[in-house]
Amino acid sequence: MSKENLIKNIRNIPDFPIPGVQFKDVTTLFKNSECLKELADIMYEMYRDKRITKVVGIESRGFIMGPILALRLNAGFIPIRKSGKLPAETIEESYAKEYGVDTIQIHKDAIDEKDVVLLHDDLLATGGTMEAAYKLVKKFSPKDISVNFIIELKGLGGREIFDKEAKVEAVLEL
Amino acid sequence: MSKENLIKNIRNIPDFPIPGVQFKDVTTLFKNSECLKELADIMYEMYRDKRITKVVGIESRGFIMGPILALRLNAGFIPIRKSGKLPAETIEESYAKEYGVDTIQIHKDAIDEKDVVLLHDDLLATGGTMEAAYKLVKKFSPKDISVNFIIELKGLGGREIFDKEAKVEAVLEL
Repeated sequence: MSKENLIKNIRNIPDFPIPGVQFKDVTTLFKNSECLKELADIMYEMYRDKRITKVVGIESRGFIMGPILALRLNAGFIPIRKSGKLPAETIEESYAKEYGVDTIQIHKDAIDEKDVVLLHDDLLATGGTMEAAYKLVKKFSPKDISVNFIIELKGLGGREIFDKEAKVEAVLEL
Repeated sequence: MSKENLIKNIRNIPDFPIPGVQFKDVTTLFKNSECLKELADIMYEMYRDKRITKVVGIESRGFIMGPILALRLNAGFIPIRKSGKLPAETIEESYAKEYGVDTIQIHKDAIDEKDVVLLHDDLLATGGTMEAAYKLVKKFSPKDISVNFIIELKGLGGREIFDKEAKVEAVLEL
């Protein structure tokens, strides 16, 4: 199983969620036990020497590989969720979407200054959600923040919107 | 780390999401790397001999331990999501909530008759969501279906609503 094989196992859905978009469906990767294992192994190798203490995943597709990575790296897993979903005290960040504004939240006690954070989501397109998530995590002043995606869609400028200090990496480029 | 220690690490949130409810916050378990590891180890031991080929997790808290279990059991991971979120062809099931009706969906090609399925969510209370998820999975006529939760809230009758053939197990009882 190689990265090329992983790419072959991503399902392309034309015109989802809106006409003109070629949606990259990663559920076909997760469904295939060999792809799931290969993905987990590659991601573990990318971060095994980074002393990560918290993996932060963005709801809800970032919840799938995020906890797997946390377990493999002996780190804790922290969810970032849509507004109103987390039960304890939160801090939040809003960001513009194509139509309107979205707000994401993280628990106020999720991270501390001793933490080394790996922020994870499935797909980097324009990067709006991850930019908001990155701002949220920075508020805790952790020692370091890395940013990871399964897939980066090249040519949409997603990577450029992050601060220069953010280490952005993707397993697959499409 | 014992089950008693896991229980100590669950955060109780009074009056969430509505007054009178004592909400069991499992994010404090996931945040603690030792709890996450212990939980993963216990769940793996529960199912290691069951020849599970697909772990099905319910959005979105069932996405956290579900994929970890899938990886450990050499199975694939299948998401059940709220209506309109899955990009390919789906089948769906609706169920009554306290106010109104909710619909959940699964991809039409997610499971086949040779599969042995483990259905996972974080918490069993009244069991409405899992009952709908169980009906969805049964439509594929897999060889066997097991049902797993991190926490079962005793005395709410959740366990009784499943068909007699469903093997329902929880890591922790509260």
